Amino acid sequence: MAARGPRYPYAPMTESIVPGFRAAGVRCGLKTRGPDLMLIASEAPSAAAGVFTRSTVVGAPVTLSRARIRRGQARAIVANSGCSNVAMGARGDADALAMTEAAARALGCPPTDVLVASTGVIGQPLPLARIRRGLPKAAAALRPEGLLEAAQAIMTTDTVPKLASVRTRIGGRLVTLAGIAKGSGMIEPNMATMLSFLLTDAAVTPALLRRLLRAAVATSYNRLTVDGEGSTSDTVLLLANGCAGHPPLQDAASSGSLRLAAALGEVCEELARALARDGEGATKLVTVRVAGARSAAEAERAAKRIANSVLVKTALFGGDPNWGRILQTIGAGRIVIDLPRASVQLGGVSVFRSGASTGPEARRRAGRALRASEIDVVVHLGAGRHAATVWTCDLSYEYVRVNAEYTT
Amino acid sequence: MAARGPRYPYAPMTESIVPGFRAAGVRCGLKTRGPDLMLIASEAPSAAAGVFTRSTVVGAPVTLSRARIRRGQARAIVANSGCSNVAMGARGDADALAMTEAAARALGCPPTDVLVASTGVIGQPLPLARIRRGLPKAAAALRPEGLLEAAQAIMTTDTVPKLASVRTRIGGRLVTLAGIAKGSGMIEPNMATMLSFLLTDAAVTPALLRRLLRAAVATSYNRLTVDGEGSTSDTVLLLANGCAGHPPLQDAASSGSLRLAAALGEVCEELARALARDGEGATKLVTVRVAGARSAAEAERAAKRIANSVLVKTALFGGDPNWGRILQTIGAGRIVIDLPRASVQLGGVSVFRSGASTGPEARRRAGRALRASEIDVVVHLGAGRHAATVWTCDLSYEYVRVNAEYTT
Repeated sequence: MAARGPRYPYAPMTESIVPGFRAAGVRCGLKTRGPDLMLIASEAPSAAAGVFTRSTVVGAPVTLSRARIRRGQARAIVANSGCSNVAMGARGDADALAMTEAAARALGCPPTDVLVASTGVIGQPLPLARIRRGLPKAAAALRPEGLLEAAQAIMTTDTVPKLASVRTRIGGRLVTLAGIAKGSGMIEPNMATMLSFLLTDAAVTPALLRRLLRAAVATSYNRLTVDGEGSTSDTVLLLANGCAGHPPLQDAASSGSLRLAAALGEVCEELARALARDGEGATKLVTVRVAGARSAAEAERAAKRIANSVLVKTALFGGDPNWGRILQTIGAGRIVIDLPRASVQLGGVSVFRSGASTGPEARRRAGRALRASEIDVVVHLGAGRHAATVWTCDLSYEYVRVNAEYTT
Repeated sequence: MAARGPRYPYAPMTESIVPGFRAAGVRCGLKTRGPDLMLIASEAPSAAAGVFTRSTVVGAPVTLSRARIRRGQARAIVANSGCSNVAMGARGDADALAMTEAAARALGCPPTDVLVASTGVIGQPLPLARIRRGLPKAAAALRPEGLLEAAQAIMTTDTVPKLASVRTRIGGRLVTLAGIAKGSGMIEPNMATMLSFLLTDAAVTPALLRRLLRAAVATSYNRLTVDGEGSTSDTVLLLANGCAGHPPLQDAASSGSLRLAAALGEVCEELARALARDGEGATKLVTVRVAGARSAAEAERAAKRIANSVLVKTALFGGDPNWGRILQTIGAGRIVIDLPRASVQLGGVSVFRSGASTGPEARRRAGRALRASEIDVVVHLGAGRHAATVWTCDLSYEYVRVNAEYTT
């Protein structure tokens, strides 16, 4: 259905061009090196939807963007790395507002049309003068193929920029959906933040756009865990500028909406997997699939417990086919499992079945399979018919180094 | 009130003698080296109480001991390290039963008077022949001052045996309470298990004993976390043989009961702290105190989130006074915090107050304070009047080594 773009991380720039959008990433001096200020702008007013952190401690940019997006419309996104503008009180709110005003001036649009996100150190004032000086430079650098530079400007401990795109047809028109994301790893010395900005030239009503985004996030970014922590700044934004020219989608059951939903799901899943693969210190992308649960919620909870267990994550790092730790974390979560009917597969090898180990030879084969850079952990609970998938990474010495040796 | 015994880990043997009890730890060949089989016996029938794992996956010894302790009476505890007898189906149940029968034969008491616990590899059959050969040897080695050897025989990745004791007066008689414990660290290659056995010569009805044990566990072992995981085998047993000779305690509000409750609380807290200090790869004992919460449950949840956050634990390992990670994990847990009224102290140094950092000099002082081997993390949420304390340890390279390099 959707013509799939080349795989992460190097979609050629032409693939990620979304008609009517331009993007740029420039350096304004917030991080010690590299680009740190990003601008995305639409030539037309866009329907806009957002999903934000559910934390009780949120950054000023989250508060502002959350309020502005209620209108369902926006025209630009400004974001920086190097400073999260969190825990700064009234000054933080004023700085976030001023940052959107500076972006609006550079773009020639009203500030209320600008959404904002920040990621980086917590508890430090936003270097507003540098951002103000950087924004005209960013506006001048805007170009249709600038999305990779934008992805670079929001990187923190990420080791590669994350960019994905797909194309589909809606109402006879070619429609593009492209997105960027950053992890889900520690930032400067302080915060883990997940940011993702998604752009499409599809025409969609704001109400449907919101619904499509929530559904896509539920099975992608919300199924991703690196260290079990959410951040004060997690933000996913989706702009749809309608430049593809088809009649606006408004019925969730229409074939066009289903195509857009599929495209959105595909891009979000690809970016979520890229974030897990690039988790701090990660040596392996781990896909945890739990089936046979009593309910969908219990399936997801079991998968997340496995994905967040430091005992399981260190075992996967060491290539140890340790099904005992998997059963133990399921049990400790008080999740219903019927051991005689349950099973565990590691790297495609069955290591626990019918209530018992499948023996030392299977264990050795699983140990070899766990040396791969992409690993599947598949658990059947034997208790029901519900399933869930979660992505994560292993926990290595490098994770401890990244998070312990940032002494300040 | 309670005359306190010398501190962990080397209470002299005479301090831990509980009149009427004898203990032994011997080697029967379940682990690659060291003692691995333990026996504790009372000369008189004892009131007995137990608290067990709440996991949905439990070992056969837990099932058997849980059933036997309903009677409120027991005379002996047999326990082994090196094999947990978990996930072994009907064979596991039969083996746990046979282990208590062999202990009963060696002691000359009915098997129903024997409680059992096992810790070690999951999914392997219990080497019953070795245990049967070892039990007469253990029975012959029983002695009043044998509790330290018993503590050694249940060690797995523990680096030191854990033993604590206090004395108090009840009804004019000197009463001793002594206990041993093992961590809360990985066992052979497979399971984390917390075992603790507590002995007293106080005279107590089974109903009151159960109540006292639950209360003590709630504020000690249940406030301890190394890696956020419970095990299939967690077991705390308390025997009271009445040899002190005072009239049996039955009223929870009596002065004697309050003294025993205080003694029990003291021993359990001392052992819980010893377990945290000896967590796998731990370089620091961390005490997390949360105050100012809306409810006691929210205070405990906040403290446990901080104690289980791998971001906080790696920061403490690195000596990084990173209050941002603490606020972030509180927020991600959706715990109510009033930032302008909240505060964070690390190692006795205030690093966050009135909604803002206390500045770089305080940060430097906190960084120095975090080099200590015992650290307090104190957080005031500014949202209410409830408080909770939790003990944990930091997360080091050694933790990853212990848990990753047991390739099988």
